[in-house]
Amino acid sequence: MIYTVTLNPSLDYVMHLDQMNAHCVNRSNKEEIYPGGKGINVSIVLNNLRIPNKALGFIAGFTGKEIENVMKQLGGDTDFILLDRGISRINVKLEADKETEINGMGPQITPSDLKDLYIKLEQIEEGDFLVLAGSIPKSVPDSIYKDIMKMLANKNINVVVDATKDLLLNVLQYKPFLIKPNHIELAEMFNVTLNSDDDIVTYARKLQEMGAQNVLISMGGDGSILITNEGEVVKISVPEGTVINTVGSGDSMVAGFIAGYLKTKDLKQALKFATATGSATAFSTWLATSDKIDDLLSKL
Amino acid sequence: MIYTVTLNPSLDYVMHLDQMNAHCVNRSNKEEIYPGGKGINVSIVLNNLRIPNKALGFIAGFTGKEIENVMKQLGGDTDFILLDRGISRINVKLEADKETEINGMGPQITPSDLKDLYIKLEQIEEGDFLVLAGSIPKSVPDSIYKDIMKMLANKNINVVVDATKDLLLNVLQYKPFLIKPNHIELAEMFNVTLNSDDDIVTYARKLQEMGAQNVLISMGGDGSILITNEGEVVKISVPEGTVINTVGSGDSMVAGFIAGYLKTKDLKQALKFATATGSATAFSTWLATSDKIDDLLSKL
Repeated sequence: MIYTVTLNPSLDYVMHLDQMNAHCVNRSNKEEIYPGGKGINVSIVLNNLRIPNKALGFIAGFTGKEIENVMKQLGGDTDFILLDRGISRINVKLEADKETEINGMGPQITPSDLKDLYIKLEQIEEGDFLVLAGSIPKSVPDSIYKDIMKMLANKNINVVVDATKDLLLNVLQYKPFLIKPNHIELAEMFNVTLNSDDDIVTYARKLQEMGAQNVLISMGGDGSILITNEGEVVKISVPEGTVINTVGSGDSMVAGFIAGYLKTKDLKQALKFATATGSATAFSTWLATSDKIDDLLSKL
Repeated sequence: MIYTVTLNPSLDYVMHLDQMNAHCVNRSNKEEIYPGGKGINVSIVLNNLRIPNKALGFIAGFTGKEIENVMKQLGGDTDFILLDRGISRINVKLEADKETEINGMGPQITPSDLKDLYIKLEQIEEGDFLVLAGSIPKSVPDSIYKDIMKMLANKNINVVVDATKDLLLNVLQYKPFLIKPNHIELAEMFNVTLNSDDDIVTYARKLQEMGAQNVLISMGGDGSILITNEGEVVKISVPEGTVINTVGSGDSMVAGFIAGYLKTKDLKQALKFATATGSATAFSTWLATSDKIDDLLSKL
């Protein structure tokens, strides 16, 4: 089974405006609302691919229940912890000539809530996949991903961590199956400028030396570079297409990588599947569908 | 019974930010969410005063159901029409050093939905109050308030209309019990500058000549002027206090006026009650509570 964890899921409320003026009354002429959060995105793409998975994390209030409802309508399985206070945040995306975002805080998460999460995590079994993705709400200790991996360390679980900076560096000692920083995040982690693919490979290998099994460095329109657990370097380009929306594209790569790996047990095939899935999201208004992924896969 | 109609109810999502920057990613550090819409506000204040009333209008999706839930939790009665498409809009209020608002469109309302509303309106009986408040969604004909009043014309119902410009001018022929434009809206309707209370009375009387029974002109911190159905002019000042939030203050005046009138059958007492109620909202973070109204009433 694949498990995803999203500590602070959201509803993303997209409002389309002719113009966005701060400190004024603005009117939108169309609205959409989607569940959001990196782990949630991974789960939804896996659902679209009909790959069984379970979304874990904290939800609260009527917005939290809506996140759960939509996930289930999309054919997904969830095992969220429903907090008894607050509401899951609504992140506002204002689409005018340029984009403005306002992200909410979301509900407080207490140590007792975290204990409930640890109990849920005990259901994960040897050989399962666990995706830890996204930033950490203020009310949760920075060490949470490390703490989770430490707790599961002797279980032989394939953990995928999609996080940045210290949040990522701290977990490497527990040998995550896959990490997927982009090239900008990679440069930030080592406080360097990356001028070439060789530079990227050099620093990606450092992450591997620190413990990561497979290191996938995404580079947006420039494709991505995978350093496999056997030290092989594989570069792949993205298929041609018109970029509509990059939100969730990285999460889609994670979903695609796991899906491809489970199907073929081959890391290069997984990279191909990840690329098709990430691009399928970038070329769509929301997350990648199975048809779109198949279409792009045939072009790689 | 008192009925309120809100054609496009909302959830008002208040996000508190240190600073609001357009075309950037902003983060809020606190969020609140309230049901919104003028008729909804009138109903909530009546509920706070424990005055039976029923909220009518259109709701849609999980946000619409939440509006209904909260109204019921606040002790109110509702008889909304649940549309089978879209969601009731979320209006976003960004509170930084200055306020930015982004109001949504909300769901499409079809002629068949309007027919359902007319059927609901048939339950209103002689002597009841009906509050028609707020602007009209694009999908609804501009004549809706006039059409509703025409349909109910022979029933001797006390209709209160809180609307502006043509929306208000068009209904006057059906002799609404009360209209409540503010002094700025009054000036706009006649395309004039109002320099004194005498000017305001002159134009308020014109609205009365056009059909309105009682005309209440609110003037924010400068109090308000009532022209009664007997032609009497009554001016009242607002009580002292610190203004925290003017949203819903006008709607609270409407609720207070009806509550005071039902209690005393005296228009001057109704004006006093309206003033205390409007101010109670202005001096609160959300809508007026019964305690706050009583407190201010004792100071008038």
